[in-house]
Amino acid sequence: MKETEISILKDRLPFWNRLSSEEKLLLSQNAVSVLYDKHTAIHTADFECIGILLVKSGTLRVYMLSEDGKEITLYRISSGDVCILSAACVLQAITFDVCIDAVSDCDVIQISSAAFSKVMGENVYAEAFAYKLATERFSDVMWAMQQILFMSFDRRLATFLIDESAAQGSESIKMTHEEIARMMGSAREVVTRMLKYFSSEGWVELSRGMVKIRDREKLMEII
Amino acid sequence: MKETEISILKDRLPFWNRLSSEEKLLLSQNAVSVLYDKHTAIHTADFECIGILLVKSGTLRVYMLSEDGKEITLYRISSGDVCILSAACVLQAITFDVCIDAVSDCDVIQISSAAFSKVMGENVYAEAFAYKLATERFSDVMWAMQQILFMSFDRRLATFLIDESAAQGSESIKMTHEEIARMMGSAREVVTRMLKYFSSEGWVELSRGMVKIRDREKLMEII
Repeated sequence: MKETEISILKDRLPFWNRLSSEEKLLLSQNAVSVLYDKHTAIHTADFECIGILLVKSGTLRVYMLSEDGKEITLYRISSGDVCILSAACVLQAITFDVCIDAVSDCDVIQISSAAFSKVMGENVYAEAFAYKLATERFSDVMWAMQQILFMSFDRRLATFLIDESAAQGSESIKMTHEEIARMMGSAREVVTRMLKYFSSEGWVELSRGMVKIRDREKLMEII
Repeated sequence: MKETEISILKDRLPFWNRLSSEEKLLLSQNAVSVLYDKHTAIHTADFECIGILLVKSGTLRVYMLSEDGKEITLYRISSGDVCILSAACVLQAITFDVCIDAVSDCDVIQISSAAFSKVMGENVYAEAFAYKLATERFSDVMWAMQQILFMSFDRRLATFLIDESAAQGSESIKMTHEEIARMMGSAREVVTRMLKYFSSEGWVELSRGMVKIRDREKLMEII
């Protein structure tokens, strides 16, 4: 591994300073840089458990797949994030499997399951990190589940944006998230989270004090 | 706290021996025995965050609630288990809230959020325990989500049980989980997990080498 890559391990793994030199060496020696082309299937239930992924650039999509091929997107992992469910096999508390695709060309550092598993077994800081990260993804999944099962706020927000764009006579809606929340009788955090989701799907573009509609058809579809 | 209750803390909290005497004292002094009557709402998004629950007897139901009152059962917590989502506020990685009801009369030991939060902040073993437990519940939720969204295996299994009961001319189907799995072209683990779910809902009764239909109507309903 190059120095720059080791510095990424230090940066992204908050337990790095709690590791012994042997543990640091083990992780560095079992970490490799991998490029995944757009649309590559990185992980499925049939593949081996590849390990933890530190995303340098690009976006991964984590989804559930039914027996009859139905897909449900759970969340996305972007540049700067760490993907833990690609190493589900090393986390005893995880009894499910998900699929992971590259949404765009991805540059990742991949730490092998075997090495991470060994360090997790020896070092409680690594264990706490892994399970905390898994719990963050739990939060993402709960959010996705609420959207899918209750389907209310996304519809309401899409409706609001379409109406507001008509009212302002423009695709660009000049409002802050705070203002949108106030007008919708909702909380700013909820509006921000949903707008980020709309933006990650390419339906809107976000900038300071402005929401620009990019895919009006898609927004109309979810209403 | 009585001696027997402190011994429950020791038993259920695997990090107990990693705690300092001050931390042990803090948890014991902030743990109380509470009785919840059947159907009591123990936790909702509006209630304060009550803390961790060690279930001595009874069953809790953890569910999501939509704005318009729709409920989705995520999992159940029974005697011997520890409920962590009632202390979601102390876990920074959890950004959602759930509701918790008593399905039956429940006897629990309740450790206050403040005390647990302090110990978690000081002691990485307590932190790792809490997040590992949350990740186990993540597994439960993923399973519930698969059932709800893909709805295939529960239907298939219900169909199989109804058909087999007709074939054997009895409400009691004399087959092991292994045999059922083989006949359904599935895995034993999948059959066992679904049968346990059917059993927790009171639709079937399980005993060695036997599945007895208890609520034929309910099974017919999900087919």
